[in-house]
Amino acid sequence: MIKRIDGGVCAAKGFLASGVHCGVRKNRTKKDIAMIYSECRATAAAVYTTNLVKGAPLLVTKKHIADGYAQAVICNSGNANTCNADGALVAEKMSAMAAEALGIRADDVVVASTGVIGQPLPLEPIAEGIPMLVKALSREGGSDAAEGIMTTDVAKKEIAVEFEIGGKTCHMGGIAKGSGMIHPNMATMLVFMTTDVAISAEMLQKALSSDIKKTFNMISIDGDTSTNDMVTVLANGMAGNPEITEEGADFDTFMKALNTLNVYLCRAIAADGEGATKLLECKVSGAKDEETAKTVAKSVICSSLLKAAMFGADANWGRVLCAIGYSGADVDVNAVDVSFRSKKGEILVCENGAGVPFSEEKAKEILLESEIEIVVSLGNGAGEASAFGCDLTYDYVKINGDYRT
Amino acid sequence: MIKRIDGGVCAAKGFLASGVHCGVRKNRTKKDIAMIYSECRATAAAVYTTNLVKGAPLLVTKKHIADGYAQAVICNSGNANTCNADGALVAEKMSAMAAEALGIRADDVVVASTGVIGQPLPLEPIAEGIPMLVKALSREGGSDAAEGIMTTDVAKKEIAVEFEIGGKTCHMGGIAKGSGMIHPNMATMLVFMTTDVAISAEMLQKALSSDIKKTFNMISIDGDTSTNDMVTVLANGMAGNPEITEEGADFDTFMKALNTLNVYLCRAIAADGEGATKLLECKVSGAKDEETAKTVAKSVICSSLLKAAMFGADANWGRVLCAIGYSGADVDVNAVDVSFRSKKGEILVCENGAGVPFSEEKAKEILLESEIEIVVSLGNGAGEASAFGCDLTYDYVKINGDYRT
Repeated sequence: MIKRIDGGVCAAKGFLASGVHCGVRKNRTKKDIAMIYSECRATAAAVYTTNLVKGAPLLVTKKHIADGYAQAVICNSGNANTCNADGALVAEKMSAMAAEALGIRADDVVVASTGVIGQPLPLEPIAEGIPMLVKALSREGGSDAAEGIMTTDVAKKEIAVEFEIGGKTCHMGGIAKGSGMIHPNMATMLVFMTTDVAISAEMLQKALSSDIKKTFNMISIDGDTSTNDMVTVLANGMAGNPEITEEGADFDTFMKALNTLNVYLCRAIAADGEGATKLLECKVSGAKDEETAKTVAKSVICSSLLKAAMFGADANWGRVLCAIGYSGADVDVNAVDVSFRSKKGEILVCENGAGVPFSEEKAKEILLESEIEIVVSLGNGAGEASAFGCDLTYDYVKINGDYRT
Repeated sequence: MIKRIDGGVCAAKGFLASGVHCGVRKNRTKKDIAMIYSECRATAAAVYTTNLVKGAPLLVTKKHIADGYAQAVICNSGNANTCNADGALVAEKMSAMAAEALGIRADDVVVASTGVIGQPLPLEPIAEGIPMLVKALSREGGSDAAEGIMTTDVAKKEIAVEFEIGGKTCHMGGIAKGSGMIHPNMATMLVFMTTDVAISAEMLQKALSSDIKKTFNMISIDGDTSTNDMVTVLANGMAGNPEITEEGADFDTFMKALNTLNVYLCRAIAADGEGATKLLECKVSGAKDEETAKTVAKSVICSSLLKAAMFGADANWGRVLCAIGYSGADVDVNAVDVSFRSKKGEILVCENGAGVPFSEEKAKEILLESEIEIVVSLGNGAGEASAFGCDLTYDYVKINGDYRT
């Protein structure tokens, strides 16, 4: 059983965190740097953006956790440290400063940055911030860390769960940064997870790589795959369970806990997409296989036209059919059913690829809610998938029409 | 030499056109049906959407011009006649009514519809409109036809050119409907072209299929590939040139004329994208081949983030790099140069994949213009391509948040 508990990255034993304002951002009321620290070395796993343009911190992190271990995370917001000639040097230096201040190995640091691309990241504020972060590290610092990594995010995203493995109570927690340039591919925006489960680095990577295909890789805010997407998980083993080194019941439990966290964070990221007023979830069933269902779900959730219609609470289901049609998936368009669902009810709008009469009033009532499900049945198989997104609003345009200034 | 002349689909000899309000739309001031007629049978070619969900009119048109000939076009706006159980019947009936009124063969009619998906298209207004259209047919009716096919388009799109083949003066003209749900793939939005050139149906199709890969397939307004995209060209041979039946100088001249028309219509469609305030053109050079250049250009032009930045006249070039990186093209990201260009000048913002210092003031001045070029050099080959798009604005959201009502 996976039980939701309070907290975030400090819910697991032995993890401390902090977040402060150091000056990367001019706005002094906004925390812009975060740290997560484990009292002992932890196994580490990560997945990264597939964008050919990769943020310098990702390359450094990849090198650091190549041995399967890490002990701390340092992450700033406000500047992505990407497309800068000195990017790798700056990321190494940021990482080395954190390691020195914490008294840990230089290559046990996960380093990350998020914000504007192509502006040199100054080291001075980071050098000032690190001692503050170390001083502020505490069991209560998870929320501060969650704040420190936010950019245009409006809501802080954190979650923690409790479960049992090998008779031991285990914990897992995570924080995420989403909002814009979100269309993860094989990896995702910034997500940091911690757990006190004892699990080998190999199995930890296996769990993470498998789960993200159904979770983070199924989100799209705006179709733009960021240069700095990264999900990492640190597992410090302090729960005392027998180390998970192979598949089996314990690994399954771990996977369930991980999936609980990730689905929560996915929904939180989608709901807090730049300018979003609604969380959209496209649930596809009846596909010939899971891959087909995923392709269809993601195509629907990415349609600018559908996203704008959802903003206007307009049951314009033709745009759903259109997005299914151009998705590239092998689908019998004459067998497609579509309905819209929210806590106000469900309404069928299309059956066997053609419209059915429905109450526009009822549809409006359903679509005025803040969480909408677009339910698609393809009618010819057992493949299922969900994709997560948000509506397209005036505020998305506003935020991105003038992001740098 | 391809000379631009006044006019549209009636510039070529023997073509008449008209456009009227028939009642598919409620707004009586908006023309909602158009007709183009050739005094003799013409060879015909067309390309269609690759969306699996195809508008019923496309299927009927495909059948009608399978023999390589057509003599008239009938097209309504306000309703796409797509995803309707009786769609094919309605399109056949619409086509038959036009043929009867014109006294031509039933299978010599190109039929098209554009507008809302999934609402039955009533035949009554069409039946009323067709006699009006036939009566209004004239050499001056091209503009009315251009108006009759508009949906959320703000500007009428028509163009004509004059050129010489085999010592005969030839003409070619076209009209287009674009605006939203525009991301053509192998075919495009609605474009109707006419020419008095004598050309075999086979060579006509070859010319069209080849040209659209560089023109209409390189436009994106919103990433949504419509269910009703179609480009057709009718060639009635009335210029009296020796019929073009193979490649050679005459075919090359024809291709040049076709390309002139299509580039013009592409730019007109992109500039009049839903809500657009700016035409964007991404010009890519230095790619290892043309396909790579096209992939990169289209990825940049499709980025919601870049489109919003252009709306805000914000030189946020990191978003260009990001879009190049996730395009899937084989590119050395450390060799990429980017500059922004308009009639106010050109400014280099990124060299060898990293930012260079530039005047924000000058960049703003350049980006405040209504036609912007995003110039990308990949630095390692001879491949070139251009893609056409527009900015993402409040009005795009407004138009699509409440399109049906």
